[in-house]
Amino acid sequence: MMTIVSRLAEIVTQVRKQRPLVHQITNYVTVNDCANIVLAYGGAPVMADDIEEVQEMVGHASALVLNIGTLNSRTIAAMLLAGKTANERGIPVVLDPVGVGATLLRTKTAREIMSQVKLAVIRGNASEIAVLAGEEAITRGVDAGDVQGGTLALSRALATTAQCVVAITGAQDIITDGRSTLLCDNGHPLMAKVTGTGCMVSALVGAAVGVTDDYLLATAAGLVSMGLAGEYAARASGLGNLGSFRAHIIDSIGKFTHVDLQNGAKIYAQG
Amino acid sequence: MMTIVSRLAEIVTQVRKQRPLVHQITNYVTVNDCANIVLAYGGAPVMADDIEEVQEMVGHASALVLNIGTLNSRTIAAMLLAGKTANERGIPVVLDPVGVGATLLRTKTAREIMSQVKLAVIRGNASEIAVLAGEEAITRGVDAGDVQGGTLALSRALATTAQCVVAITGAQDIITDGRSTLLCDNGHPLMAKVTGTGCMVSALVGAAVGVTDDYLLATAAGLVSMGLAGEYAARASGLGNLGSFRAHIIDSIGKFTHVDLQNGAKIYAQG
Amino acid sequence: MMTIVSRLAEIVTQVRKQRPLVHQITNYVTVNDCANIVLAYGGAPVMADDIEEVQEMVGHASALVLNIGTLNSRTIAAMLLAGKTANERGIPVVLDPVGVGATLLRTKTAREIMSQVKLAVIRGNASEIAVLAGEEAITRGVDAGDVQGGTLALSRALATTAQCVVAITGAQDIITDGRSTLLCDNGHPLMAKVTGTGCMVSALVGAAVGVTDDYLLATAAGLVSMGLAGEYAARASGLGNLGSFRAHIIDSIGKFTHVDLQNGAKIYAQG
Repeated sequence: MMTIVSRLAEIVTQVRKQRPLVHQITNYVTVNDCANIVLAYGGAPVMADDIEEVQEMVGHASALVLNIGTLNSRTIAAMLLAGKTANERGIPVVLDPVGVGATLLRTKTAREIMSQVKLAVIRGNASEIAVLAGEEAITRGVDAGDVQGGTLALSRALATTAQCVVAITGAQDIITDGRSTLLCDNGHPLMAKVTGTGCMVSALVGAAVGVTDDYLLATAAGLVSMGLAGEYAARASGLGNLGSFRAHIIDSIGKFTHVDLQNGAKIYAQG
Repeated sequence: MMTIVSRLAEIVTQVRKQRPLVHQITNYVTVNDCANIVLAYGGAPVMADDIEEVQEMVGHASALVLNIGTLNSRTIAAMLLAGKTANERGIPVVLDPVGVGATLLRTKTAREIMSQVKLAVIRGNASEIAVLAGEEAITRGVDAGDVQGGTLALSRALATTAQCVVAITGAQDIITDGRSTLLCDNGHPLMAKVTGTGCMVSALVGAAVGVTDDYLLATAAGLVSMGLAGEYAARASGLGNLGSFRAHIIDSIGKFTHVDLQNGAKIYAQG
Repeated sequence: MMTIVSRLAEIVTQVRKQRPLVHQITNYVTVNDCANIVLAYGGAPVMADDIEEVQEMVGHASALVLNIGTLNSRTIAAMLLAGKTANERGIPVVLDPVGVGATLLRTKTAREIMSQVKLAVIRGNASEIAVLAGEEAITRGVDAGDVQGGTLALSRALATTAQCVVAITGAQDIITDGRSTLLCDNGHPLMAKVTGTGCMVSALVGAAVGVTDDYLLATAAGLVSMGLAGEYAARASGLGNLGSFRAHIIDSIGKFTHVDLQNGAKIYAQG
């Protein structure tokens, strides 16, 4: 039996081998980093957000990433159409609900995507997942005790109601499909001081779900990869050198091997 | 009595402590640098430009930055609405009139913002401020001698008519509220060879006005911080290494301390 | 008689001297790199994509670059209007048909630009040029043997039918006006692992056509410059350090001299 870590390493190897095309409809703040990190990981990024071309573009892709960081009515419609098209063709969809809860538009859009598109993975920070889980909880009558019972309970509740993998990134990452849960201790506090590290990990998850049907492990592979890159970048750039840190994250993703992953991964099954 | 430099150092300390949320409606060319530099400074950036969410988003913010670098009809409407909402809630607004004078659309939009939104700070280069001051001068009958009397007179004229702080960045920076004027000699010529250094300093000013009502000193704090970062980056990257220079600007903003500011600031009251 | 390399070096010297304004209507993924590389080369970039200002803005410019990497109906209309205005004023237009063939929208838009705007240069990769050449071939009855006869024949066929310079970048670059053809062996495989190296070389070509009417040599100057920058960046960053590689490309463009170009250029006339 392969260990979890061996299986994650195999997913990373497959990304480098299969070069999955990852279609991203994302925000204009971190889009360059999201393209470069997918390229460095071994995938092929493509950004296209016009409603006239997203159906055709997602048809070429191995995965679709929807990131709501800078929404507008034009891109919301494109996201919904791309998502539904991906569903029809069996292409996994990753949702990054950036800033959900901060405005009604974000919350409404995230819910609209969740109701119209079958998701493979939702990846957010603790407060974003809490908003989506809480909304779900209220809507569907989930026991409030669960919702208030901490991040782990929230992520499980959301995974169960949304029937997909839910990942929360933070000091400790949580990856769950509502039944099995993995915890990951990789990463570095400096990652919170650079914009787009959340968007970038969602992009890596997009590449990983593009090469395997095991979305739980694919998500874990993306998160462990990003966490290791953060650890490497912190060492390489010197603490506090945030501009260099960002470049070193891409450096790390581009050159780390399955051996680095096997030596560095801090991931284990919860409970 | 605190010296000017001590008071600027205190503002920087407050940014790092209070972590002001800076809502930026800005161009898609330098948006990533504007987000990263605010994060590195200690603030929290948020970019949102859809008319359906800007009112709500700016309501969470400590400051709003409007940057007209890549305008379109959708974002112009969002800027005006966000600006008026900020005014209603007492949130300071910084205007960066990128390229004003180059096209009618930019001049018209900058004027529209100035007439509909009470600004805390306008930050531009000498020619941008000259356009706005000249327009004001013609419109309001300011003595033409003033308008043609050099950059200092222009910035004072604009500050007086627009009733806000006006900052011109260049070889020597000018910061004035029409009465008091500060001059700053920090900075490095390489800053003109990297896109977005102007946008970035406006973003820093946004963070600074988010923690104090003294907009003159807040603006000075942003300009001195950026100038010191440019000096550091020039040393760290080797002259002419423009790609590295850009990363080192963020490095510097992320790690410089109030001690560095007190040792390095070259700022003094004019006249 | 000057050698080709001496003439390319002279073009680079003229870019640094004349500081051509390069108006770019481009994608939001690589736009920052496209601005910074033009600045580093010695030109002045300006990005403006609203239909209300592109006519005025392109009127100030020495060259216009149209890049279809992230199209939408708003920017398509702006590209067509800017292109036609550039034609009226004798300003050279460079087309980068990013991803043409991947979707109907891209193919339709590239063809629309080609039919409404007289281009100075089309710069793409082999498959993008093949799509445009093939389309042209089918439309205009060019012998299919030519179209299938390899990249060189395709680029010549397209240059002849579109009456402009066509450049294909890849392991070996091809630059042709349909009669004369230059081949360039500069560059490095890592360039394919960073997003935007294609967009950036088109931006450099924009700067170069802004200072000379010899579009064949101007295009060659842009391609050789980018190739040399890739070689330098690969040495400077260590193989596989992709984040650093990207910064070092800008470093290199900012500081390489006509002497570096004369020593490093691997360019020769074909046939």
